[in-house]
Amino acid sequence: MLFEQLPSRYLENAVSELAKLPGVGRKTALRLALHLLRQDKSLSQALGQSLIELRENITYCRTCHNISDSETCPVCANPSRDNGVICVVEDIRDVMAVERTAQFNGVYHVLGGLISPIDGIRPDDINLASLHQRVSAQPVREIILALSATVEGDTTAFYIFRQLQNLNITFSTISRGISVGDELEYIDEVTLGRSIQSRVPYQQLLVSEKS
Amino acid sequence: MLFEQLPSRYLENAVSELAKLPGVGRKTALRLALHLLRQDKSLSQALGQSLIELRENITYCRTCHNISDSETCPVCANPSRDNGVICVVEDIRDVMAVERTAQFNGVYHVLGGLISPIDGIRPDDINLASLHQRVSAQPVREIILALSATVEGDTTAFYIFRQLQNLNITFSTISRGISVGDELEYIDEVTLGRSIQSRVPYQQLLVSEKS
Repeated sequence: MLFEQLPSRYLENAVSELAKLPGVGRKTALRLALHLLRQDKSLSQALGQSLIELRENITYCRTCHNISDSETCPVCANPSRDNGVICVVEDIRDVMAVERTAQFNGVYHVLGGLISPIDGIRPDDINLASLHQRVSAQPVREIILALSATVEGDTTAFYIFRQLQNLNITFSTISRGISVGDELEYIDEVTLGRSIQSRVPYQQLLVSEKS
Repeated sequence: MLFEQLPSRYLENAVSELAKLPGVGRKTALRLALHLLRQDKSLSQALGQSLIELRENITYCRTCHNISDSETCPVCANPSRDNGVICVVEDIRDVMAVERTAQFNGVYHVLGGLISPIDGIRPDDINLASLHQRVSAQPVREIILALSATVEGDTTAFYIFRQLQNLNITFSTISRGISVGDELEYIDEVTLGRSIQSRVPYQQLLVSEKS
């Protein structure tokens, strides 16, 4: 019913292009397009231009595949960061999330996706070969696998571990458990079960929070 | 926390422009921008171009202010539509909503907004003068006030009635089968269709609300 013809081909174009965005249906797309029509012309111009330029001009860090305007991203270019510890993440939002914690002083490797046979994403489709090259070319002490706690995340972590385990590298993964502030009764049993299995000595927690 | 600097000015531009859209925050904007980066270049190109062209090239029907690629919109150009009955609506989504009911064979007048002193929208800011001209220039038997059942909708309806009541026109309003506070575009077509069929003279509404 909502796929009726709009009275203008320009409106129709804009709506069908907007509706290709994730989480945007045709109804929302029409609302957005009509909003733009009510605003000053410069707004649509700036939005349209910024989207074209984004895809046209964006470049990625040659080392870690983080989005960057230069060949080397600010993190990789920072001499005070520890090149011996690489945090492997799915995309740049995860880089931002880890950076916000201010708990990590190493460098990143952005995979750009996770291995997912269901979605047809194979190991070759993500930045795994360059991770291999990177750890072969320079001494790396530790790889932190900071991937989502999903089947795809676990699969990808295991694949990386299998591929690089013969090198002299410590592998670690961000700890799984209950979130800070969570109430026990609302936690799903898989998470709670896993956090009981991987329980840590209480003294260790006290020490780590003090430091 | 989310207003941190992004690692690329192109990404920053796209995110801040997307975040100006209604209902899109910076977090959603970043998700959309990263989605576009993962897709083929042609997609961002088409989206950006369509938004620029939308605002650049859109034209409105000279008669009813409906969005149209020609000087006269398909409804006004259709000789089988009854020019003697004008349905006054807020925007083109309302035209589409009424058209979907298949209960109306007259023509439209799109106000492009509602009188709203709070938002600083005065009668001069919406297409009221042209409605006056239109009913003065051609014989109109009936004006159906199909406006949202909100304070702004009621204010606008009353303003139109006061402005044109001396002309020999029957005023009606879609019946209050729609609940107070509802916005027109979200109503199912059976309810909306029924409320057009059982429209009541505007004077009668004034009397019934007074009593």
